Amino acid sequence: MQTRSEETRARIVQSALRLFADQGYDATGVAEICERSEVSKGAFYHHFPSKQSVFLELLKQWLEGLDREMGKAMSASASVPEGLMAMAGQMKGVFAAADGRLPLFLEFWQQARRDPAVWKELIAPYRRYRDFFATIVQAGIAEGSLRRVDAKAAGQALVALAVGFVVQGVLDPGGAKWDLVMRDALRLLIAGLSSGR
Amino acid sequence: MQTRSEETRARIVQSALRLFADQGYDATGVAEICERSEVSKGAFYHHFPSKQSVFLELLKQWLEGLDREMGKAMSASASVPEGLMAMAGQMKGVFAAADGRLPLFLEFWQQARRDPAVWKELIAPYRRYRDFFATIVQAGIAEGSLRRVDAKAAGQALVALAVGFVVQGVLDPGGAKWDLVMRDALRLLIAGLSSGR
Repeated sequence: MQTRSEETRARIVQSALRLFADQGYDATGVAEICERSEVSKGAFYHHFPSKQSVFLELLKQWLEGLDREMGKAMSASASVPEGLMAMAGQMKGVFAAADGRLPLFLEFWQQARRDPAVWKELIAPYRRYRDFFATIVQAGIAEGSLRRVDAKAAGQALVALAVGFVVQGVLDPGGAKWDLVMRDALRLLIAGLSSGR
Repeated sequence: MQTRSEETRARIVQSALRLFADQGYDATGVAEICERSEVSKGAFYHHFPSKQSVFLELLKQWLEGLDREMGKAMSASASVPEGLMAMAGQMKGVFAAADGRLPLFLEFWQQARRDPAVWKELIAPYRRYRDFFATIVQAGIAEGSLRRVDAKAAGQALVALAVGFVVQGVLDPGGAKWDLVMRDALRLLIAGLSSGR
């Protein structure tokens, strides 16, 4: 059960998410977040030292959600190519739940360019994903489903593909059925990695 | 030969590029651009109606440069896979000449989210690249070097890969030799597209 304090914290985070997504990070002030979440400034600063720390909490929650989904997809699959395709299948959920989160993603990257603290928080998980996918490719080579490719390069390619589609989804939401397009693209890349067995 | 008017215009564009890249679009004012390029406000407004129009000129020049490079790579190659690899080879130049331009790329995307005029200018060439790569894949299928894949999906995958690497190069310039990583990734994707002939 959520305590009252946890509930307040969650409300602050949700309000900040909406405001950042609607009007951008720079245009949003702590006072506005307080107003929207109906908490006092005192309560806000009890939970977060600054607006930036709410921002970083959002990033953390988003990444934890991604981790959970990807872990589930991988562990429920019989082989690496199947697991990768299952992950792509989940992108429908990611894009559908976008709802202000995808534009925020672009905002994270922009902030990261300007603020070393944000950069550090963003670059660490990004490098982790790169390694995570390299490990998956390595497992695919070991199980014989993938060719003996450079696992690190393949991991990079998978991350680049994901990043590229997220950015395109942010900019041109109506331009394609992004979840389907991404699945097709991943299928092509997996065909390139596949041992053909 | 460049006329004096053209020379002034080019100087304004170059100064704006430096300022936007160093301190961001929002933080840069017309007065600063004038000061740096040593032109009067009158001269500035003779060439550009607004700061935004300089920004759009930068975008246009960047895209025209890309077009020229890609066209050269394609026309000098004997087959589609070879042409695609030649384009990837040029990425070294793109990343090397980054020098403030890659961060600006992220700035374009951020501005596009907020301003329909920028969005229109950005989305049109982006869709054009998507179609351009789909046409190239179609040509590869016709010449027999590529499998009978969905050309549109393959075009999307190529664009996503490029966008993904550009964004990563912006955020983590020291994180990898991006031109080499991109070439390796493209090679994997081409292997997935290849007819094996």
